[in-house]
Amino acid sequence: MKWAMIATWRMAIDGITEGSQLLKEGKRAGEAVETAIKMVEDYPFYKSVGYGGLPNENCEVELDAAYMDGDTLSIGAIGGIRDFKNPISIAKKLSEERFNCFLVGTGAEDYARKNGFERVNMLTDRAKQYYEKRKRETIEKGLSPYAGHDTVGMIALDCNKKMVAGTSTSGLFMKRRGRVGDSPVSGSGFYVDSEVGGASATGLGEDLMKGCISYEIVRLMREGYHPQEAADKAVSDLNDKLTKRRGKSGDLSVVCLNNKGKFGVATNIEGFTFSVITEEQKPTVYLCENENGKTTYEPASEEWLEAYLKRIKSPITFD
Amino acid sequence: MKWAMIATWRMAIDGITEGSQLLKEGKRAGEAVETAIKMVEDYPFYKSVGYGGLPNENCEVELDAAYMDGDTLSIGAIGGIRDFKNPISIAKKLSEERFNCFLVGTGAEDYARKNGFERVNMLTDRAKQYYEKRKRETIEKGLSPYAGHDTVGMIALDCNKKMVAGTSTSGLFMKRRGRVGDSPVSGSGFYVDSEVGGASATGLGEDLMKGCISYEIVRLMREGYHPQEAADKAVSDLNDKLTKRRGKSGDLSVVCLNNKGKFGVATNIEGFTFSVITEEQKPTVYLCENENGKTTYEPASEEWLEAYLKRIKSPITFD
Repeated sequence: MKWAMIATWRMAIDGITEGSQLLKEGKRAGEAVETAIKMVEDYPFYKSVGYGGLPNENCEVELDAAYMDGDTLSIGAIGGIRDFKNPISIAKKLSEERFNCFLVGTGAEDYARKNGFERVNMLTDRAKQYYEKRKRETIEKGLSPYAGHDTVGMIALDCNKKMVAGTSTSGLFMKRRGRVGDSPVSGSGFYVDSEVGGASATGLGEDLMKGCISYEIVRLMREGYHPQEAADKAVSDLNDKLTKRRGKSGDLSVVCLNNKGKFGVATNIEGFTFSVITEEQKPTVYLCENENGKTTYEPASEEWLEAYLKRIKSPITFD
Repeated sequence: MKWAMIATWRMAIDGITEGSQLLKEGKRAGEAVETAIKMVEDYPFYKSVGYGGLPNENCEVELDAAYMDGDTLSIGAIGGIRDFKNPISIAKKLSEERFNCFLVGTGAEDYARKNGFERVNMLTDRAKQYYEKRKRETIEKGLSPYAGHDTVGMIALDCNKKMVAGTSTSGLFMKRRGRVGDSPVSGSGFYVDSEVGGASATGLGEDLMKGCISYEIVRLMREGYHPQEAADKAVSDLNDKLTKRRGKSGDLSVVCLNNKGKFGVATNIEGFTFSVITEEQKPTVYLCENENGKTTYEPASEEWLEAYLKRIKSPITFD
């Protein structure tokens, strides 16, 4: 019996702790992923996922999410949905369909409404304050407003060797209306095959899509790469290619997990964190560093974790 | 000096003939792809792309398209756009942006409007008749209405060794509002890297996405596979995997082209056709057959071509 869960960013730690309880009880990976991601979506102080997520340039919160079943390869995905509480649950439901599994905009909202999903105005006062602040600091000064795009991307392995991947995000802060990133895009934001493993990405969706990075990581694991080697190679190769072809690469960060419960993580930025729990390891937040194409990580200190909680709840100040 | 163009389906033949004139004059692959796909979009009797494309279940024509530059890996994509004449041109324009390159629904329409693209009601009387007929034959009898999903997917190589991929489609006939298929999804509907080659897919988008088939074909070509071997292997592997995991596979058809001007094609269905033109080969429509995982093709006869033209213009009869 083996189970494990891994996810991008510190924000997933409470979710995977809760989700892993289900895995311990022998429940399915899909249920664990949905439970975990819903917790991230519901927490108002995570400003890049679900309720409290940062809005687009029109001050509308538009959400993307996806769910993939590693046994059947079934995918459900939504892009640019407004005013629904739990995008991950809508994506999971869509993965049960043979046709029309990726829905966007008002069509995704029609589907969610007809299937009884809860409507909520996802814009919080706090997110609106961030929006006003950002607008003053960038758009009103003629500067590019784009910043912040922390997707929760998660992989779970359950005791029946089933694997599932899930993603949820409010996308790029200040994005154009209707902008879809990598999170609902198969092979870019997520990919999972229970016979091998799964991967999920966070960063600049526009650049992650140029390398189908999650598919590539799973493929490398199938070829025999350890998850850590697969993650490092995929991020390093895409970063180098984008730098060569375009002069620069956007933020690229990934987590992955194979079907033996071994995990990997890689990033080309400072400050990437991830959350992991396995049968052998208590829930832990790690901070990553990348040096010469190799990612290393160490557990977040108590001080770091306290400062994080303080930071995400601190008052928004206007210069 | 080498140039070539290949595209899914018979419907692309006039477009690539016109596009190849530009390549002969030394013009760029991007211009050739845009010119060629616009011709397919503008022709009212092609019922799965652009003007005259078949509508969704609400009788609205919603279009998907993508454009990828094989030098920079820049991607522009739109999903579920309504009432704009040339989706490929909007996608090409979006590929020039660093952020917000994949837009869907009303956001895509906002962008197109602000950038001066021409508005047209894309629903023709003929497409509406198809819709009414299909509705009577399926939905009103409690049957599944989904049928028809012929995307134009195209790859061009120009004299400067630049490669470009483009797709355009009205998507699955009778799809749900907001349904997005593989056509605007990087790695699934299309992928191109000028250092290797490009690929594009048509078929059941929901299943093509499960294998990131276009990315996989380009990857195989990078490993040294001839385009024909790469196409056959990718379709055969995905078909077998879907059959094993899900009991069946949807329609999967692909075309690909490497940066030497060599092409490949593969399908798991009866009746797949493609259009190709290279420096050494006049514009030709081929009919494909698949036997034991190997795709073969032969030029369409005069009789077949005449029957095709007659068929696409024939009156729509109600039983």
